[in-house]
Amino acid sequence: MPPLKIALIGLGTVGSGVARLLIEQSERISRRAGRSIEIRRAVVRDLDKPRGVELPAGVLTTDIQSVIDDPEIDVAVQLIGGVDDARTVMHALLDAGKDIVTANKALLCEHGFELFGRARELGRTISFEAAVAGGVPIINAVSQSLAANQILSIEAILNGTSNFILTEMLTKRTAYDVVLREAQELGYAEADPAMDVDGTDAAQKLVILTELAFGTNVPLTAFPVQGIDTLDLVDLLTADELGYRVKLLAVVKLLDGQLEMHVQPTLVRADWPLAKVDGAFNMIAVEGDAVGRTWFSGAGAGQFPTASAVVADIIDTAVGRAALTFPQLDLFREQAALPVLPTEKISRRYYLRFTVEDRPHVFAEIADILGRNGVSLASIIQHETPEPDEAPAATDEATVSVVVMTHRTTLGKLQAVDAELDRLTTLHGPRVRMPVAD
Amino acid sequence: MPPLKIALIGLGTVGSGVARLLIEQSERISRRAGRSIEIRRAVVRDLDKPRGVELPAGVLTTDIQSVIDDPEIDVAVQLIGGVDDARTVMHALLDAGKDIVTANKALLCEHGFELFGRARELGRTISFEAAVAGGVPIINAVSQSLAANQILSIEAILNGTSNFILTEMLTKRTAYDVVLREAQELGYAEADPAMDVDGTDAAQKLVILTELAFGTNVPLTAFPVQGIDTLDLVDLLTADELGYRVKLLAVVKLLDGQLEMHVQPTLVRADWPLAKVDGAFNMIAVEGDAVGRTWFSGAGAGQFPTASAVVADIIDTAVGRAALTFPQLDLFREQAALPVLPTEKISRRYYLRFTVEDRPHVFAEIADILGRNGVSLASIIQHETPEPDEAPAATDEATVSVVVMTHRTTLGKLQAVDAELDRLTTLHGPRVRMPVAD
Repeated sequence: MPPLKIALIGLGTVGSGVARLLIEQSERISRRAGRSIEIRRAVVRDLDKPRGVELPAGVLTTDIQSVIDDPEIDVAVQLIGGVDDARTVMHALLDAGKDIVTANKALLCEHGFELFGRARELGRTISFEAAVAGGVPIINAVSQSLAANQILSIEAILNGTSNFILTEMLTKRTAYDVVLREAQELGYAEADPAMDVDGTDAAQKLVILTELAFGTNVPLTAFPVQGIDTLDLVDLLTADELGYRVKLLAVVKLLDGQLEMHVQPTLVRADWPLAKVDGAFNMIAVEGDAVGRTWFSGAGAGQFPTASAVVADIIDTAVGRAALTFPQLDLFREQAALPVLPTEKISRRYYLRFTVEDRPHVFAEIADILGRNGVSLASIIQHETPEPDEAPAATDEATVSVVVMTHRTTLGKLQAVDAELDRLTTLHGPRVRMPVAD
Repeated sequence: MPPLKIALIGLGTVGSGVARLLIEQSERISRRAGRSIEIRRAVVRDLDKPRGVELPAGVLTTDIQSVIDDPEIDVAVQLIGGVDDARTVMHALLDAGKDIVTANKALLCEHGFELFGRARELGRTISFEAAVAGGVPIINAVSQSLAANQILSIEAILNGTSNFILTEMLTKRTAYDVVLREAQELGYAEADPAMDVDGTDAAQKLVILTELAFGTNVPLTAFPVQGIDTLDLVDLLTADELGYRVKLLAVVKLLDGQLEMHVQPTLVRADWPLAKVDGAFNMIAVEGDAVGRTWFSGAGAGQFPTASAVVADIIDTAVGRAALTFPQLDLFREQAALPVLPTEKISRRYYLRFTVEDRPHVFAEIADILGRNGVSLASIIQHETPEPDEAPAATDEATVSVVVMTHRTTLGKLQAVDAELDRLTTLHGPRVRMPVAD
């Protein structure tokens, strides 16, 4: 077979990893692709920036149009970030007849439905294994390996930075700010970590998985998204005492024909697989109606884990598998999208923490408000707060922490509770609310 | 596209699960296969046996020849067990132009190299996701998702029965025999569990994974295979105290161009993912040179998890992906097979337990023998044996258990030690030797 000619659009960390794999492992990769793979262009902004990879003369260019206009280029590996420019470029590449391999999750989250549909109209493919959980082949698993199943739920740790920070906070009993700084120094967190720690990154990946597993395009605004950036160490320690780990869990579940979705710091029973994932790893638990529960885990990011996923997609495209798989995916199915369960109707168990004045009857008022709103309590833990070694004490002398585990209740009821609690003068400090996984 | 016509050869637990999925979920499965899938024949031994599935009239037959002779049948789903008959049947089916989907690991372990080669000569495909770790799509992961990688190691829990028994022994502090009986009553162990508990089943799966990942066909006799059927609860409890779990680990590693392979009860650090897999689950840890470490976990067996894998293979064949993937696999590659490291050269750390007379200098003799044979000790633990609640005490009053953790050493050296220890009169009871994973 003739070589597959590709262009790399973007040659940052992942792009240069892809180039190195293709060049340094060309024998292995061509054997598995059934043909050699030739990097014909690599489009960059700055020709002089060092890339850590030696490309043949004439490959490096700043001119994206030279890719669009070159009919010999079969595949564009689109590794530029951002949304608007990337979208324009992808449309131009599709229109020019290129198959696409991409790692741009933000783009697919916002415009995937449109782009997938356009690719299908044009008979082209978009492969995106690297867009969700880099080193974990979850796209392939859901698309092919679990194709016999109706997916029932996906529960996942999709942001390695957040998981690293949570692990460090708990094991070192150290406050969020301190751990974040360390993570930045170690390279586990970006200089601007906002999208990682505020839940956006995990939510974007959840949107892509939801489109793949349920054929439904859900905007980021349609479900609760909360990050780890407001977590207090005290709650991690209290949860630990109660037999739970706090994880930033991204969840989509099929319930009575509706999708329940959320990304939130969540209490996970310590003996569950998702609770046992420590450090900068990802794990995706997928439940199918035939296969039952399966778990996939590995590096969620990083140069070579992500490059491994990109190259697998390039091989898939070279072999011709992508052309067979893509039209069969549920990404753009004609049947009606599934409705998303309204936030206020999401029913879960909750961990609640209140800081109250340390005198009789104060908690009775809270219990009364909970009770009148139909929130019933599974347990009340009013004991000495586990004292972080370094963090400032969460209570002062006049107040005490009360932790409550509720029975299953809706967010709507808890919002009504909140409105009443706002008027109590005996409540101080932060009120904490985290769902419990089940 | 015209329907894909298939024959089910064997309609036992897995076969009837496959039939039910294909019939009850035909809309979903045809959408993903891009065509409908028609069960044209189901070959059984006994037409009258209840199957838990309603097949169209005329489908059930005892005549395998009616499948071989029917040119309209595209795919044979071969779910009969055993080796010799299954091999003859598979050859006949391949020669008749059928693509194959199978779950028969014993057959592929013994004759896979020959059958894969024959299929390739004939331009046919053999798909076998269900042959290794039913509900865990590890074949697809290694074949496609990790195709950019040189696999460096596979470390896996591949036998759910053994893992269930080990979990129960430890958590209930109960001896092997008692737990095995319970497992049989619960359906987690077969009436004849020999192949599960003696390591054969895991070793067969390891042979298939090794062929896939390293293009090398290794006979079962070329590496150490040991099961859990001789394990003493005392060693599980002692390992637990030392911070390890005992797991039946199937391992293949690429070391300096050679394959190190073994299936043995192994001490795994309690905080490693493989140590945390409890009950009747499988986990496969795969290390690739680009992706790093990844973990795949789920049900290793069972009617619908295995049927899910079989149907995924049927869909792959229907779509045409199998025809593209199969010729690219390393299953029958022309380059030289990798040599297998001889057993006596395998270098690992070991847990050793001796039962010695409880008087001075007895252990000094053992230490001397170890030392003279170049086995150096990392730690010696001579303390009260953790006492199982129900199991008979492992020591009587005149003897004491000594547990030793060695530094890295070879099996060859330990065999020389064993020969000398055999001559000691102060040693009593069983000598236990288990490798430590690293």
